[in-house]
Amino acid sequence: METEKPYVIGMDLGGTNSVCGIVDARGNILCTDSVKTQQYPNIEDYIQAVCNILMPMIEKVGGIEKIKGFGIGAPNGNYYNGTIEHAPNLPWKGIVPMANMFKTKLGIPVALTNDANAAAIGEMTYGAARGMKNFIVITLGTGVGSGIVINGQLVYGCDGFAGELGHVIMRREDGRLCGCGRKGCLETYCSATGVARTAREILTKDSTPSLLRDLNPEEITSKDVYDAAVKGDAIALKIFDFTGKILGEALADFAAFSSPEAFIFFGGLTKSGKYIMDPIKDSYNENVMPIFKGKAKMLVSELKDSDAAVLGASALGWEAK
Amino acid sequence: METEKPYVIGMDLGGTNSVCGIVDARGNILCTDSVKTQQYPNIEDYIQAVCNILMPMIEKVGGIEKIKGFGIGAPNGNYYNGTIEHAPNLPWKGIVPMANMFKTKLGIPVALTNDANAAAIGEMTYGAARGMKNFIVITLGTGVGSGIVINGQLVYGCDGFAGELGHVIMRREDGRLCGCGRKGCLETYCSATGVARTAREILTKDSTPSLLRDLNPEEITSKDVYDAAVKGDAIALKIFDFTGKILGEALADFAAFSSPEAFIFFGGLTKSGKYIMDPIKDSYNENVMPIFKGKAKMLVSELKDSDAAVLGASALGWEAK
Repeated sequence: METEKPYVIGMDLGGTNSVCGIVDARGNILCTDSVKTQQYPNIEDYIQAVCNILMPMIEKVGGIEKIKGFGIGAPNGNYYNGTIEHAPNLPWKGIVPMANMFKTKLGIPVALTNDANAAAIGEMTYGAARGMKNFIVITLGTGVGSGIVINGQLVYGCDGFAGELGHVIMRREDGRLCGCGRKGCLETYCSATGVARTAREILTKDSTPSLLRDLNPEEITSKDVYDAAVKGDAIALKIFDFTGKILGEALADFAAFSSPEAFIFFGGLTKSGKYIMDPIKDSYNENVMPIFKGKAKMLVSELKDSDAAVLGASALGWEAK
Repeated sequence: METEKPYVIGMDLGGTNSVCGIVDARGNILCTDSVKTQQYPNIEDYIQAVCNILMPMIEKVGGIEKIKGFGIGAPNGNYYNGTIEHAPNLPWKGIVPMANMFKTKLGIPVALTNDANAAAIGEMTYGAARGMKNFIVITLGTGVGSGIVINGQLVYGCDGFAGELGHVIMRREDGRLCGCGRKGCLETYCSATGVARTAREILTKDSTPSLLRDLNPEEITSKDVYDAAVKGDAIALKIFDFTGKILGEALADFAAFSSPEAFIFFGGLTKSGKYIMDPIKDSYNENVMPIFKGKAKMLVSELKDSDAAVLGASALGWEAK
């Protein structure tokens, strides 16, 4: 069977770009192409545009009969229904039956899940979690996402939306307002935007000199904080300490839930290396329940950023029905 | 096979009593007996004492060849190793290889897990969770325990100790000191002892008249609070509101993890009925992420207290190897 259909398609559907790739069983990406997501406010047009870039790629590898399945990672993607539901950063409102739409158009099995779950499948199939049965992928990007694997299976819960660890409440008094409408969510502190928010707060409260004061406070990014930290900037280090402290506290609670073999970090913020990872580890060790101490590894994704999301989504294609 | 071996043994190993029962495939407890756990500080003596009460029960149902397996629910029980590890309320220190000891003695398969996991298996096999694939049992007793089921399987994690939801941190500033050595654990607020602690705190801070003031503050139990609440006592109602508020906040975070179909409550505190359940539900609805709102049922265990622990442990006996 698999020798007859040696390839899968993966698509990383993001708010800006939708990147497609054709992938073989070893995780090699044979070819990629992309469309601008926001250019297609009409969903039918979007599906057609994606098919338009896919067809030449499919022909290149020998035709649609060589493709086992198509996996999509998308914000607010629901694995059970193959739908994208009320995704705030995508142009289509309400519930979009995307898996079925591609299935009808291409005639191959299509599966869809949210982007963090796709990253977890990618790590399990091709990355740092190979051979692991219990781990949690934490994506540190514009938001904080999570893909939880327990007993070798992704956790989808009763409705397909499990694994929203960016939205556990970390500060119940005076917590920061979150996009989900509540206050104090992990995401408001530990996403790239959370780090920028922390930067503005600390620069206001603390008068220590800092390279970050040369920047427009509204435009500070986590990359700026990293660049300053590398130069030994005290405020920058304080920003990462604060971020790592809260993330470590959260991870300690997650350990009490599923006692994972590893936490695997993925996304832009991981580029800050030890400046963010050391405070995370310190805080985790300080906060985790004694029986879990020293058990969970803290790993950074081994997959290239540009590839990981496509690879993760494609891995879903092997099991699509 | 199963008609040849129609029974399992279940044992609820508690700090005070160790209750054994022989159970059939429909969940009928055919006979029970117990020993006083604390009377056997020597583990060999304990194993022998349990075997001594088991042998007549086993004979009654037709001999050891009628027994498929033996399941044990015990504090700090580790499913993977069949061990009890550093249980603070049991007379044996360190790591006790209990499953193996009984296996050697009785010559049948023995499995062991912690008491809250046994309760979850009991609910799934015979109780409120029949047919559910994703649910969380919360035990509200002297402590707060949990048994988490995801995709129809109990969550044990990488080390066998997953599901310690009584030890997520609910108050990071000025949290109550917990037996685990940390501060602010859910258990310090929402266990029976947590409720008693809350009673003492509120009685000190709030001068409203209360029936609870007639009691020795050090001896107030959650039962006393319930009795007062039934009579409309304002302080008693306030105690349950506070307890339910914190538990509801915790459950909202748990939903973000595994999006369960139901939370099932078990243990002494559930006897307070609506006085505790209504505040839990209100707080949950107020705190849960919008996408999870209205999805998880809040159920109270249908199993009789006295039977549930033995039934849950026995259910493990069917799969013991």
